[in-house]
Amino acid sequence: MTIKIYGVPVSTCTARATACLYEKGVDFELLLINFFGGEHKQPAFLSKNPFGQIPALEDGDLTLFESRAITAYVAEKFKETGTDLIRHNNLKEAALVKVWIQVESQSFDPAITPIVLEYVLAPMKGKTADQAVIDANLVKLEKVLDVYESRLSSTKYLAGDFYSLADLHHYPYTHYFMTTPWAPLVNDRPHVKAWWEDISSRPSYKKMAEAITSG
Amino acid sequence: MTIKIYGVPVSTCTARATACLYEKGVDFELLLINFFGGEHKQPAFLSKNPFGQIPALEDGDLTLFESRAITAYVAEKFKETGTDLIRHNNLKEAALVKVWIQVESQSFDPAITPIVLEYVLAPMKGKTADQAVIDANLVKLEKVLDVYESRLSSTKYLAGDFYSLADLHHYPYTHYFMTTPWAPLVNDRPHVKAWWEDISSRPSYKKMAEAITSG
Repeated sequence: MTIKIYGVPVSTCTARATACLYEKGVDFELLLINFFGGEHKQPAFLSKNPFGQIPALEDGDLTLFESRAITAYVAEKFKETGTDLIRHNNLKEAALVKVWIQVESQSFDPAITPIVLEYVLAPMKGKTADQAVIDANLVKLEKVLDVYESRLSSTKYLAGDFYSLADLHHYPYTHYFMTTPWAPLVNDRPHVKAWWEDISSRPSYKKMAEAITSG
Repeated sequence: MTIKIYGVPVSTCTARATACLYEKGVDFELLLINFFGGEHKQPAFLSKNPFGQIPALEDGDLTLFESRAITAYVAEKFKETGTDLIRHNNLKEAALVKVWIQVESQSFDPAITPIVLEYVLAPMKGKTADQAVIDANLVKLEKVLDVYESRLSSTKYLAGDFYSLADLHHYPYTHYFMTTPWAPLVNDRPHVKAWWEDISSRPSYKKMAEAITSG
């Protein structure tokens, strides 16, 4: 049975889920939600995710939401095929993947998200970007990237010398961030730059980016 | 080799990690960090967690940080003993645990944390609580608890009819929240109230609460 993803390609969280499916080489069907028409707040979608947020996944009779739970499920279900994103045969490496997944979720995401939302999304909604919000979060993001620079000077990827779900989770917001005037925050840190060039050259990233561009 | 936790009992994130160790019946040693003296920002601790946040875990030569990564590691390493917190033998149940772990992290925590920090922590630092911050987050928390009320009317615990890490992750902030004037947000929702009474009656919760009280 084909996995179904409900969402829209331009959504960062939809993109995180689909990027993982691309990385694992798992076929899926993308069922478009009329996001700007508010379809995700209607009863049909709320029955899949009571929080009314995209994406949702359906796999047979199983319905999931929260992009990072969807990726973790896909990585677990298909752990024996394609890239092992969770290092399931090595307890210590698996633990380090969990740590850096949390870092993305707890430190990176809360800093980069408001910047992308203000710079990219506000104008799409006819609003002016709030520069004070951007500035405050650029300060936070720089601190996070300083830690990344140090970390990536000793390991090739965040959790170790292996690509993992922790790296993949950075795809969507960094993709949008690199279109902003603050891309030098990444490019001026040599190890962060090398890491980003590496992971954004993967076929899974390119497929995700293409889907975002095609809208 | 005994697991070491670096932190302080009153810290919510330290409490989340230790509660999981209590639940699994795993012995550990708590190494106190002089949190109010800023020891977590000094080089010795930064070598364990470059973000300078407690807790950190040491298990032999493995060092971890981020409380939710620590609990996930403990739940995985000791999956065959005590309560199975991650439903490791059932892919679908395990996926639902992942979903509700994300809900706690992405929806519950961002709403309840500012309330607890303002009401409990600000006065400890000699500051006045910012009521506007509290009010804005009470609105967010009510929306989350409405979803919980609906969810818990069909399943006994968040991920299903089994206690899991998703429930345990709620311990520390809810513990503090129940000391605030807004505890009725929990108690006025019958299914949320029954859930909270159930999970807060577990020995792991009681040990955590006792450690917080003893400071």
